[in-house]
Amino acid sequence: MGIGLTILGSASAIPIHQNFPTAQLLQLCGRYILIDCGEGTQLQLIRAGVKFSKIDQVYISHLHGDHFFGLPGLLASFELMQRKRPLQIFAPKGLEAILKAIRRESGMRLSYPLQIAALTTNASEVIYADDKIEVKNLPLDHRIYTNGYLFEEKPKLRKLDRAAVEKYPEIQISDYPNLKNGCDFIRKDGTRIKNEWVTRDPPNPLSYAFCSDTAYKPELADLLQNVSVLYHEATFLEADAHLARQTKHSTAAEAARLARASHAGLLLLGHFSARYRDCSAFKREAETHFEPVRLAKAGEVLKVDSGKPKMAIP
Amino acid sequence: MGIGLTILGSASAIPIHQNFPTAQLLQLCGRYILIDCGEGTQLQLIRAGVKFSKIDQVYISHLHGDHFFGLPGLLASFELMQRKRPLQIFAPKGLEAILKAIRRESGMRLSYPLQIAALTTNASEVIYADDKIEVKNLPLDHRIYTNGYLFEEKPKLRKLDRAAVEKYPEIQISDYPNLKNGCDFIRKDGTRIKNEWVTRDPPNPLSYAFCSDTAYKPELADLLQNVSVLYHEATFLEADAHLARQTKHSTAAEAARLARASHAGLLLLGHFSARYRDCSAFKREAETHFEPVRLAKAGEVLKVDSGKPKMAIP
Repeated sequence: MGIGLTILGSASAIPIHQNFPTAQLLQLCGRYILIDCGEGTQLQLIRAGVKFSKIDQVYISHLHGDHFFGLPGLLASFELMQRKRPLQIFAPKGLEAILKAIRRESGMRLSYPLQIAALTTNASEVIYADDKIEVKNLPLDHRIYTNGYLFEEKPKLRKLDRAAVEKYPEIQISDYPNLKNGCDFIRKDGTRIKNEWVTRDPPNPLSYAFCSDTAYKPELADLLQNVSVLYHEATFLEADAHLARQTKHSTAAEAARLARASHAGLLLLGHFSARYRDCSAFKREAETHFEPVRLAKAGEVLKVDSGKPKMAIP
Repeated sequence: MGIGLTILGSASAIPIHQNFPTAQLLQLCGRYILIDCGEGTQLQLIRAGVKFSKIDQVYISHLHGDHFFGLPGLLASFELMQRKRPLQIFAPKGLEAILKAIRRESGMRLSYPLQIAALTTNASEVIYADDKIEVKNLPLDHRIYTNGYLFEEKPKLRKLDRAAVEKYPEIQISDYPNLKNGCDFIRKDGTRIKNEWVTRDPPNPLSYAFCSDTAYKPELADLLQNVSVLYHEATFLEADAHLARQTKHSTAAEAARLARASHAGLLLLGHFSARYRDCSAFKREAETHFEPVRLAKAGEVLKVDSGKPKMAIP
């Protein structure tokens, strides 16, 4: 299946022409997951040709407006579309009070169950898991309570080596599930057919980490080891590192150092300050520390499977 | 000066490609006035090349999301731009509670005074006046508390007829202000130079009425007599009048009947339901009752002065 990541917006707080504030649509194991929801996200979803109704989960990093001001409109649109399926939102605790005030004053009735997981933890925990994926929050270091998120495929079953299996007539089809789960086959006489003789390693589980907004936090690398794709904010270039310090944001070089320490498969940069007209300098700066680097651009789609990641404009 | 009206969005609640929810920028007597502020208004202001900082007043009709979900982002951007001038907002009372929750939970500090006039009246009242303009709310009939707004230039001073004035050497330059104010000139012997002999009527004051969202409310015509431009919602066509009844919206024909009863100079239609792909039917339906009719289209600018109104794409 792989990872599909549609960049809906990658600007920082001050709105600029031709870009939108932070929002991404992650497709992982058939799940449609919205990560952050800046103003205009609905319009960007329409432009990207995404069926809104497929989104079942929304993860909000923090309550600065450029990361969630598109959410009330999305919730209202779901209602107008007569959505019935539940919607799960993972967000800092304060979101509930905001949505409550909006729903009360605007008379917003919802046609679907809204399940809000109000996050307050300062540790990294598993906040969601189903049969295919697992999600952990990543405590970040910003001016207000902020989490990144790590989305991981669950380990896949081992692959049967058909030719090898056929050498052992005592193995029945009903034994395959145990073999795929990594168990040896034990004969009636107690001897073993070792699992590794008849199966192959499954493809590595893919994972996606979203880290925005945050000051450089090198200890995140412990949580991000071998992540397939690391999205990390790069609001500033090193030349403006003092602004990154002041505002608790990161530079492109810092994001790249974290990617290197995490042994990431790819670094995706975003949340560029409106002060930079040409974002290519972010890529150049990051590439002095880590490769490969891509820039998040609204409307682009990143596809990752066992092969190389590639970006495409749909 | 005339009226300048930039349509920032004219869609109804369900977001559609190539349009935005309701927002308009009214330029009247040098004032920059934002009317409603649907999601994406900031981006539309940027596209229209409007300097945000010139906006000193925002009028919100009602608290359905498609009319105000762009406001929190605009307030946040003003802060990021280090605005110092006060911003006045006229809106239904509930807006304060929503903004309070957002500001508290997102840690939004404002660099400028925010003055919110919380409307609760069910009568039409003068809610703002300065030396050049006057604004009245227009109680509308919608599912929640809703006001339209009537923006009027104050009556202008009479024009001096220079050739006529020069026939009366006893009139000094210091007498001009009185003449412009409509007073006769009284000679020392008590005889009069009648004002009408030396002045001409000033141009008629221009006015703009914004009526969205509302069921057809014919009694509004009493408040709208001779309005220069009437914007009225037309969410539906007559063929779907039952939906207009159900949702407390209007049809194009109803908007046109109100324009005719109001002796409006021009009818501008907007807030079109996403169910209609081709909006030209709204114009045709309205024109069977009233002319001239224009359709509000995002990105277009309506200019009105003493001559005919015209629409242009800037």
